[in-house]
Amino acid sequence: MKEDKIITIVGLGVVGGSYAIALSKKGYTVYGVNRSRQSIEDAIAVKAIKDGAETPEKFFPLSDIIIIALYPDQIVSYLEKYGKYIKKGCLISDVAGIKSKFVEAIAANVPEGCEFLFCHPMAGREKRGFKYADDKVLQGANFLIVSTPTTSSQAIERMSRLVTDIGFGRIRITDVATHDEVIAYTSQLPHAIAVALINSDDENSETASYIGDSYRDLTRIANINEDLWSELFFGNKGNLISTITRFENQLAEIKRAIAEDDCQSLKAMFIKSSQRRLALEKKKQD
Amino acid sequence: MKEDKIITIVGLGVVGGSYAIALSKKGYTVYGVNRSRQSIEDAIAVKAIKDGAETPEKFFPLSDIIIIALYPDQIVSYLEKYGKYIKKGCLISDVAGIKSKFVEAIAANVPEGCEFLFCHPMAGREKRGFKYADDKVLQGANFLIVSTPTTSSQAIERMSRLVTDIGFGRIRITDVATHDEVIAYTSQLPHAIAVALINSDDENSETASYIGDSYRDLTRIANINEDLWSELFFGNKGNLISTITRFENQLAEIKRAIAEDDCQSLKAMFIKSSQRRLALEKKKQD
Repeated sequence: MKEDKIITIVGLGVVGGSYAIALSKKGYTVYGVNRSRQSIEDAIAVKAIKDGAETPEKFFPLSDIIIIALYPDQIVSYLEKYGKYIKKGCLISDVAGIKSKFVEAIAANVPEGCEFLFCHPMAGREKRGFKYADDKVLQGANFLIVSTPTTSSQAIERMSRLVTDIGFGRIRITDVATHDEVIAYTSQLPHAIAVALINSDDENSETASYIGDSYRDLTRIANINEDLWSELFFGNKGNLISTITRFENQLAEIKRAIAEDDCQSLKAMFIKSSQRRLALEKKKQD
Repeated sequence: MKEDKIITIVGLGVVGGSYAIALSKKGYTVYGVNRSRQSIEDAIAVKAIKDGAETPEKFFPLSDIIIIALYPDQIVSYLEKYGKYIKKGCLISDVAGIKSKFVEAIAANVPEGCEFLFCHPMAGREKRGFKYADDKVLQGANFLIVSTPTTSSQAIERMSRLVTDIGFGRIRITDVATHDEVIAYTSQLPHAIAVALINSDDENSETASYIGDSYRDLTRIANINEDLWSELFFGNKGNLISTITRFENQLAEIKRAIAEDDCQSLKAMFIKSSQRRLALEKKKQD
């Protein structure tokens, strides 16, 4: 018997929509709130939500858990505007890829008797909108819970139960500073690299005939939502610049080894990267 | 009715092995030559080859086509040593990822009455050895034919027929200089990036819990065969250094935009990269 049965998702984009599909399949009562009517109708049509509306007044008073799947910048004002409709005991959460910038402002706007748990599901797609939502992307994905000094163990337990139920894999609890630092490396840097890689193509070359899986893999995320990702990049500026610099130094070392015919160093870097990649695969299986 | 029926593969590694599997499935008579006996036995066991040996004396006189799937550096000495066993009219080919460094030396060692066609199948795997060979990697893959002033249209036709028969996708004819220049960008640069990315990890962080598909995709090829890839990197030094520099400039421009809060430029780069990635997907479908 599930304690938290009624879930409202705010923002039926690709992430919110994927949650809605997964939750409905698991028997939760899911409501959807979305600015545009089309996504609501699409979500109802595929039974991802039971009902939906452009604003949340009808659903917030009923909800055990609310997941605000909006762009990070929009969460605070949303709570300011609609927090009063949320019932006591409700667990509120987000899906934002960065945290430091908003944690205090959000904490200051959580309705009394409620708790806000900062969460970052490591699942997404480059495409936008409900039509690309798919519960498959959540299956086995890493789920990060970002705790603050006021985070309760009950909130962590409730959320862990919910996301485990819909198929997420490893759940990790971290703190705000660590989250934003590591995420700059594991998520934002790869996106910066993919963009730089495809943009460094000489437009005269007929690249498409010359590519294999490696180029395809490394540029997949170069198809990027410019509004969301510029917000994520600027919102985690310090960490991102540090991690880009660390990467630049490694690449410069490869370039130096090539230029100086330093075969020993180049092979050592290849052996190190191979070991690390194998260790990563191994950890995934644990 | 196939004109070229008997094919010998020299080197039953992951690429040569994949060819052997695919060719045998299509009804060719395939012989395998490999330094170590184990791969020969494995290949016979799965019917990838009809017969095999450590040296090619028995098979070269019978072969209509010979594919030398060795490391680039080994091709010339192989031809020097065993070219005399190759029958007149035989089409000889390679699978090497770089060309300029070897083209002249190979051309000087082609047996009389034979032709050497420089080929680069854009399919491979990071793992080594016959046990990772799989004809699936060839399906739909790009195939590059690198022509020189002495390349005959008959040789191109024979090879095109063969590789189309075993499932390769687009076949593109290019010249040596263009091949090595573009391949530095589409193949070698992605490998350098993947290695630099995973090696720039702070070893104290528990990265594995923080990764999504993007990091996984960008580091897959960081598990790299250090002998082969150091040879490819040093053998295409000038082109690779230029392309790394072009990439570094693009990444520096992203870093600058972040540091200077230049949102307009950052979004413009994201829009450009998205358009290019979509164009790439579209071209693949054509």
